[in-house]
Amino acid sequence: MKLATLKTGQRDGMLIVVDKQLSSYVVPDGEMTLQFALDNWLSIAPKLERVYKGLNGNHCFSTPLDFSKLAAPLPRTYQWLDGSAYLSHVERVRKARGAELPPSLFNDPLMYQGASDFMLAARDSIIAGSEEWGIDFEAEVGIITDDVPMGINQDDAKTHIKLLLLINDVSLRNLIPSELAKGFGFIQGKPATAFSPIVVTPDELEENWRDSKIHLPLLVHWNQQLFGQANAGADMQFSFSRLINHAAKTRRLSAGTIIGSGTVSNYDESVGCSCIVEKRVVEIVNSGKAETEFMRYGDTVRIEMLDKQGQPIFGAIEQKVESWR
Amino acid sequence: MKLATLKTGQRDGMLIVVDKQLSSYVVPDGEMTLQFALDNWLSIAPKLERVYKGLNGNHCFSTPLDFSKLAAPLPRTYQWLDGSAYLSHVERVRKARGAELPPSLFNDPLMYQGASDFMLAARDSIIAGSEEWGIDFEAEVGIITDDVPMGINQDDAKTHIKLLLLINDVSLRNLIPSELAKGFGFIQGKPATAFSPIVVTPDELEENWRDSKIHLPLLVHWNQQLFGQANAGADMQFSFSRLINHAAKTRRLSAGTIIGSGTVSNYDESVGCSCIVEKRVVEIVNSGKAETEFMRYGDTVRIEMLDKQGQPIFGAIEQKVESWR
Repeated sequence: MKLATLKTGQRDGMLIVVDKQLSSYVVPDGEMTLQFALDNWLSIAPKLERVYKGLNGNHCFSTPLDFSKLAAPLPRTYQWLDGSAYLSHVERVRKARGAELPPSLFNDPLMYQGASDFMLAARDSIIAGSEEWGIDFEAEVGIITDDVPMGINQDDAKTHIKLLLLINDVSLRNLIPSELAKGFGFIQGKPATAFSPIVVTPDELEENWRDSKIHLPLLVHWNQQLFGQANAGADMQFSFSRLINHAAKTRRLSAGTIIGSGTVSNYDESVGCSCIVEKRVVEIVNSGKAETEFMRYGDTVRIEMLDKQGQPIFGAIEQKVESWR
Repeated sequence: MKLATLKTGQRDGMLIVVDKQLSSYVVPDGEMTLQFALDNWLSIAPKLERVYKGLNGNHCFSTPLDFSKLAAPLPRTYQWLDGSAYLSHVERVRKARGAELPPSLFNDPLMYQGASDFMLAARDSIIAGSEEWGIDFEAEVGIITDDVPMGINQDDAKTHIKLLLLINDVSLRNLIPSELAKGFGFIQGKPATAFSPIVVTPDELEENWRDSKIHLPLLVHWNQQLFGQANAGADMQFSFSRLINHAAKTRRLSAGTIIGSGTVSNYDESVGCSCIVEKRVVEIVNSGKAETEFMRYGDTVRIEMLDKQGQPIFGAIEQKVESWR
């Protein structure tokens, strides 16, 4: 099924069930938030599935979907963890900032704890205080879990993946090196993150969801130009089950935890890139000099994923960069 | 005023108003959570203050307070940021793990984004998978904010400090070095954090709350032995206003954001330590060898702060270490 959150006057918005074509929606009985549904997934999900079936069969009164009225699926949540599962990205980006590759790169996932108190809707602007911050997008795929016990193994972890979504992990490249040097992760280098308007259950992807990976190209357009179409299922060193297993080693994870894949990236350079910094590194390697600049005010980025029929599965993240003042 | 959260069947518990002596409580009209109160602080706080006055004046029917029935003040919240504002701690701990001191140590606060999806109550056990993880406590003071705009200055930041509390930032010392080497902060090295049973508004500390710092000793007992009594107002390089200003440079902070001071520590060694690793470093410096081991299953830690009359202001964090299996 496909779900979204309608913007309301309330901080957490209101859960809606969206039809397969992303053209209309229904408010399920008993207004609720997506967080509430995740908190009570076992009992709520079957009811939402029934609404979804009715909606797709034209058996209920629905309202036309307006993407501009959607909030982030979870406008605020209790946990946002971002992995870095595509090693071609890690290798290129670390090379760019002259940082060493962690020796445990192939066995021990990189992951950081991100800010989850304020999540951007798919159409919200990226607000930056200065173009000098080095504004970049990072196109990712992600999952949302229900409650995950501490110490879970990879097989069991798989059963806690309830929803899939797309992510723009906005990054401020020029603020990151000094933060990484401190070792404590990102506070200023990673501002608010944006999410696809729609979240879907894994069955919506049919055979393209397997091995806890999404096997489809992630399309990235920067200022209307195709910038990348890396396949999210190729070169993903750590599956989402493994990322859950890593995060839950010493603690439980609560319902509503979002885990990102990290910037989707393939070793095949012909597919392009999912973030600017990677393109810059490729340029340095190929010509000795980075030619592509980071985003400017007014720039746009579009991130989406299409099904076999060429229809968007999650709707598109479509953001514009704006000045804070 | 003094507030707490009663454990209920619900994930977020129920807000209660506690009397100054921490002996009794009242459920304010319209059952609510502390998160709800923070989301609507301007309108809710005056009502809670009236209940608090009535309670202290014996003007309302109250219930005896049982600390064992309290949850964490925010059993889950949207943001937990931990600073490292006491440089004597930073210097000693970094020395212990052979890490370099960041060159910007005196001007640029160290801070990490912690897990906020599951917060331990003051009496909840510390659950660890192995004693080999190097189980340690970190006694801290902290604040809770309402909504903080992006780019706020230090003066304005002060007005967003709504509540104060104590923190045990549980740390797994033997898992931390490899995580820090990766630069992305803590995922496994910092399991669930514990909080004092009671949160208080800054006015409760009278003249001991000034310059956005708490000027009182933080008492730490390990297995009933006094371990540290460092003054939280001394040697705090970065005030809470500065920590807010740092965190909000590139993004807003939402209501319910908890910011910790980092392990309270004084340059004066005679006051003892607020975490074990610091004592170990002092031992290494003084005798060439660390003699104190980390916590074992069955060990207890007690963290509290007393007022002029020797009465606990926040109630005590009192935790026991237990095995996960």
